Amino acid sequence: MKIIDGGVCAAKGFKANGVYCGIRKNKSKKDIAMITSDVQANAAAVYTTNLVKGAPILVTKKNLENGKASAMICNSGNANTCNADGIEIAEKMCALVEKYTGIKKDDIIIASTGVIGQPLPIAPIEKGIEMLAGSLAYENSSPAAQAIMTTDTFAKEAAVSFEIGGKTCHLGGIAKGSGMIHPNMATLLVFLTTDCAISSEMLQKAVSEDVKTSFNMVSVDGDTSTNDTLSIMANGLAENPEITAEGEDFEIFKQALNAVTVKLCRMIAKNGEGATKLLECKLTGAKTKEIASVVSKSVICSSLVKAAMFGADANWGRILCAIGYSGADVDVNKVDVAFKSAKGTIPVCKNGAGIPFSEELAKEILLENEIEILVDLNDGEGKATAWGCDLTYDYVKINGDYRT
Amino acid sequence: MKIIDGGVCAAKGFKANGVYCGIRKNKSKKDIAMITSDVQANAAAVYTTNLVKGAPILVTKKNLENGKASAMICNSGNANTCNADGIEIAEKMCALVEKYTGIKKDDIIIASTGVIGQPLPIAPIEKGIEMLAGSLAYENSSPAAQAIMTTDTFAKEAAVSFEIGGKTCHLGGIAKGSGMIHPNMATLLVFLTTDCAISSEMLQKAVSEDVKTSFNMVSVDGDTSTNDTLSIMANGLAENPEITAEGEDFEIFKQALNAVTVKLCRMIAKNGEGATKLLECKLTGAKTKEIASVVSKSVICSSLVKAAMFGADANWGRILCAIGYSGADVDVNKVDVAFKSAKGTIPVCKNGAGIPFSEELAKEILLENEIEILVDLNDGEGKATAWGCDLTYDYVKINGDYRT
Repeated sequence: MKIIDGGVCAAKGFKANGVYCGIRKNKSKKDIAMITSDVQANAAAVYTTNLVKGAPILVTKKNLENGKASAMICNSGNANTCNADGIEIAEKMCALVEKYTGIKKDDIIIASTGVIGQPLPIAPIEKGIEMLAGSLAYENSSPAAQAIMTTDTFAKEAAVSFEIGGKTCHLGGIAKGSGMIHPNMATLLVFLTTDCAISSEMLQKAVSEDVKTSFNMVSVDGDTSTNDTLSIMANGLAENPEITAEGEDFEIFKQALNAVTVKLCRMIAKNGEGATKLLECKLTGAKTKEIASVVSKSVICSSLVKAAMFGADANWGRILCAIGYSGADVDVNKVDVAFKSAKGTIPVCKNGAGIPFSEELAKEILLENEIEILVDLNDGEGKATAWGCDLTYDYVKINGDYRT
Repeated sequence: MKIIDGGVCAAKGFKANGVYCGIRKNKSKKDIAMITSDVQANAAAVYTTNLVKGAPILVTKKNLENGKASAMICNSGNANTCNADGIEIAEKMCALVEKYTGIKKDDIIIASTGVIGQPLPIAPIEKGIEMLAGSLAYENSSPAAQAIMTTDTFAKEAAVSFEIGGKTCHLGGIAKGSGMIHPNMATLLVFLTTDCAISSEMLQKAVSEDVKTSFNMVSVDGDTSTNDTLSIMANGLAENPEITAEGEDFEIFKQALNAVTVKLCRMIAKNGEGATKLLECKLTGAKTKEIASVVSKSVICSSLVKAAMFGADANWGRILCAIGYSGADVDVNKVDVAFKSAKGTIPVCKNGAGIPFSEELAKEILLENEIEILVDLNDGEGKATAWGCDLTYDYVKINGDYRT
């Protein structure tokens, strides 16, 4: 497997673009994106577990019932959620894609992101879809990645190539994150494409398993969005023997998938609203993998840990505290904690109690912008990694006046 | 029942004081408090559910096994938690109280609050206990309330009087909150006293039930502390017939208790770290009381709701979102939301969808410093209230450099 440049256009037969159509007031920010496959693709998706679900999710679920899709349409600037006419608008968006591309309206993955509870006007959407239909391009993932951004400050793309049955396959994707990020089943918006031949069933199995160790391990602010969607289209143009069951090929596919999703996770965490640092909690020595997941996520979700990291303060007592209230079965008297970054590694807690350490070195390590929090529970073989970011003045600023 | 002035000295036969003894560097801030009862009191307590428990909690639990206590000792500035010698130090503190007051060392409620994982020196504590023993006074609750504060900016006291069996009883308390506030069984530190005669068993039953609707419904930052303790001493000096079973007298006692605890809850939420506003989520129309509790707490815990309230932004979509991910059984299409303050009430969402409203009036309402978020699930008779605060720049500032 090789990390390669690109995103949703890394795989054969996928075109994409993103343009400004007028949903946002700010004309310098693209607000609608489309991805199409040259041939009908097998498709799978996972969605938010929030009971309040965006209208686009309800329409996508219906469209993916047959495990097939040929296009993805997504607008930013408006979530089309908690609107009385939400489903009607989402269905109109699909019909407009059919009108301008010929792709059947029930063959479409649809998503929206932005403010909740404001009516989404269809006029700019129609204009956008018409523009997109006439400008889709191979190897053009970046404009689409930009068009799905909300408060994200950089576009998120990742791709890999891998071999299956002697054929070179590609898998890549784009994502947006930023705020209201605490996914449970999927993250805000992730669109993946692959030219690997794989059945809808195995595709669904692969993404459902993958999100447990990738997007479900990311938290920016503990708020699970109403519009979280991860979707994948596999068009088979790599011409490998179709993956229809578990086995070596499926494992290779899952590794490729995980390489892309973890890379996108790290980008989403690092670009959390207002964030200045990526936090990576690497947890080892848990009795089970589940305990490792719960504990590492509790650490990166703690407002107090996040604020301490913003201040480059080695306040490890807050990490112990977050381990203790995680609800997981942990012997707190066995816990070791260390901080690690490009500047080095510093152990700060052994067997649940503080040990002497250099505050100067700790400060130097924590002033970096990618911090690993290493926690060893010394109680078994289970391990997990969770990703988050620091809590900053800018998070408060961005969210104190998001609508205005 | 009457709300009266005072705190832990409102009840007969309780003395208290708070002084500076040198645990903190800042000499203008008291750091040790003591409360004593003239006669041995029945006692009860509830503690944090965090697996990491402060050493003082372990000692208090042992001391309260017989349901009796005569004194409370508490220092601020150091939590005496995650220290190898924590229990030894806590036991020494009790022995010092015995040395200077004559009250038996296993008759003492002990608590500590402050930084986790830093050794607590005994020398200043001894000096403090000696000073306190010589300066305890009736009707002197405020210095004790000040001495248990950490980043709190005002002292928290509340008291009531009530009649049982023709006798006037009193119940009052002091509390500290501020950060790491998301209690589960109790809150950071609450010390209550009463002269009402009531058995240890009924006292425990009363506080265990009370915290479900009082302190367990408060959250400042979602972090459950390692040192949460609520304790109560009942010395019987009001000379009412002792309450030893459920019935009318117990109900009166519970009402008095709840009046004091809810008042302290509102103060703790309003004085959350960096907070500028008290948020009160009043939830009605839930299928059950449990659903009402879970949903109202989910709303006041949402970082996004908290930041929107800081910005006086009527972003009700975030409230719907927090209701949706609460995990409770809710029909999101029936939900109504309104904001209320001293400036009026404004409905913003009906049946799960937005309704037109005046942004100007909403702003005016939300600029007040006590905000009610009114949520009606229109699905039954269950109701609950949860208390929280806004998320501000100062929360981040305080917690970015708490230790330094």
